[in-house]
Amino acid sequence: MKLATIKDGSRDGQLAVVSRDLKTAQLADGIAPTLRRALDDWAFIAPQLEQLYRELNQGRGRRVFDFDPAHCMAPLPRPCQWVEAAAYPSHVELERSGRGAALPEAPGDEPPMGQGGGEPLGPRDDIALLHEEWGIDFGAGLAVISDDLGMGATADQAHQQIRLLMLVNQVALRNVLPDELAGGLGPLQSRPAGACSPVALTPDELGDAWQGGKVHLALRASWNGKLVGQAQAGVDMAFNFAQLLAHLARTRQVRAGAVLAGGVVSNRGGKRGYSCIAEQRALELAAKGRAATPYLAFGDSIRIEMLDGDGKSLFGAIEQNVAQAVAPVDARRGR
Amino acid sequence: MKLATIKDGSRDGQLAVVSRDLKTAQLADGIAPTLRRALDDWAFIAPQLEQLYRELNQGRGRRVFDFDPAHCMAPLPRPCQWVEAAAYPSHVELERSGRGAALPEAPGDEPPMGQGGGEPLGPRDDIALLHEEWGIDFGAGLAVISDDLGMGATADQAHQQIRLLMLVNQVALRNVLPDELAGGLGPLQSRPAGACSPVALTPDELGDAWQGGKVHLALRASWNGKLVGQAQAGVDMAFNFAQLLAHLARTRQVRAGAVLAGGVVSNRGGKRGYSCIAEQRALELAAKGRAATPYLAFGDSIRIEMLDGDGKSLFGAIEQNVAQAVAPVDARRGR
Repeated sequence: MKLATIKDGSRDGQLAVVSRDLKTAQLADGIAPTLRRALDDWAFIAPQLEQLYRELNQGRGRRVFDFDPAHCMAPLPRPCQWVEAAAYPSHVELERSGRGAALPEAPGDEPPMGQGGGEPLGPRDDIALLHEEWGIDFGAGLAVISDDLGMGATADQAHQQIRLLMLVNQVALRNVLPDELAGGLGPLQSRPAGACSPVALTPDELGDAWQGGKVHLALRASWNGKLVGQAQAGVDMAFNFAQLLAHLARTRQVRAGAVLAGGVVSNRGGKRGYSCIAEQRALELAAKGRAATPYLAFGDSIRIEMLDGDGKSLFGAIEQNVAQAVAPVDARRGR
Repeated sequence: MKLATIKDGSRDGQLAVVSRDLKTAQLADGIAPTLRRALDDWAFIAPQLEQLYRELNQGRGRRVFDFDPAHCMAPLPRPCQWVEAAAYPSHVELERSGRGAALPEAPGDEPPMGQGGGEPLGPRDDIALLHEEWGIDFGAGLAVISDDLGMGATADQAHQQIRLLMLVNQVALRNVLPDELAGGLGPLQSRPAGACSPVALTPDELGDAWQGGKVHLALRASWNGKLVGQAQAGVDMAFNFAQLLAHLARTRQVRAGAVLAGGVVSNRGGKRGYSCIAEQRALELAAKGRAATPYLAFGDSIRIEMLDGDGKSLFGAIEQNVAQAVAPVDARRGR
């Protein structure tokens, strides 16, 4: 099934079931007011949502409305755990070479992974930041939402607890990153709020494309209307989502509603374009000694989408404009 | 006022107002069912909670019950943002020297800070982990809970948005940390779930001890009943909580309910004992060439508390036992 969270002025929004073709939706308020509540008791709530989903797809829904991604928050607007892996070695290598950092040692048994902030934006919210000079980059990827998972769980066990998938735009501030990484505590300021696709879907919606804990479809990234990337998300992924979740669970109880993003999707050799600008710049630097492609400018737009075998959008599109934010006025200083 | 969250089997618990002397409490369900809800609309909710708090302290409460920290969850069990700073340079220096890492460069203008996981335990919950060999350490510190704070806010603005303070036990796995830090994405597995004091309190409860965004009182840490640390939290803190929050807000909207932990409290020279074992081991290593004090063993207990000028507990005590966790049984593998 496909789920979305509709903006209603509250911080958690309202849970809605969305039709498979993304055309219509129906509030799930009689079942669970928010996705958080649904995830809190998934085994009990999910079958009821599935029933609503079936009725909606069969044209038997009540109080049906046209689905509009512009009215969506992130499917889970306030996750308590937001973890970011870097499961595509090709991205890690390019990102590092682009900033002149040492390449990682031979890929080990452990996936690169760090804590992130649980503050995802809706799919049409602006990427609003104070300064272009921070080196604003997009980052197209996939994320899973987990159910409860015990400490020390195996990858097999983790696989069974993957409840939902969604697309993410993992925004990065490339010019803020190097100083921050030198501090050793991981990216913080250099990873501002990202965004999620309009819809989160259960793995069965992917059919055969969900295999071995990976999504075997292309992730399309467009910049100012031009398609710049269509990397295969199931290719060159060194750790699948089940392995990533098991890594997270090694020393902690993973709680229902934890979000784990797999990292910027990246295929070796750059043949299928790029899912973040840093990769393109690294390739230019290596080929011509100079990174020609600039980072995002205010007014730019980014679109991230995944199509099924029939060319139909699975998650709806993330479509964000880059905008200049304004710092709050300090009343005491008059600015 | 003092607030706590009472265990009721749900994931967010029930909000209660606790008397100043920590003896009695009263559910706030008529006002806000959870602390999250209260923080979502603090300007409207807080005055009502304050009124309940006054009545409770005056012996005019209704449905009053004895306050028992054993029934508490963390005051905010599921924060969406959990950030950990390292605001005490003495801790950073000792922790690094203890593992043979280079000392940080001359303290800069930027506080060390990284994302953490929002999964705090209650004050009496076990520190349950799979292996002693991970090098289980406690870490006594303070944390603030923020209201909404705009991107680019000043420290003055941030100071006005500090709503609550609490004690935290920032548990660390010292033998897992070095490999993880080498990866560059910050601590993840090496920072399992920590714990919070029974009570979160508004800054006014601290009276004159809340000055300049710091808490000018000693933080007491006991290990198996023996007092091992009583560092002054207001001394040797290089960045106050307002500055720390402003750092977090530089590239993001901080949302109500964000938790920012200041790091392990540490005074220079070790004269007032230690707030984490790693510091003691580093001092031993420097003095005798060998770290004699072991990390925590299963069965050990840790108590963290802060007393006011009259010797009364302000937040209640964190009292945790270290226990061996058991990994979930994998039905397919029969283990």
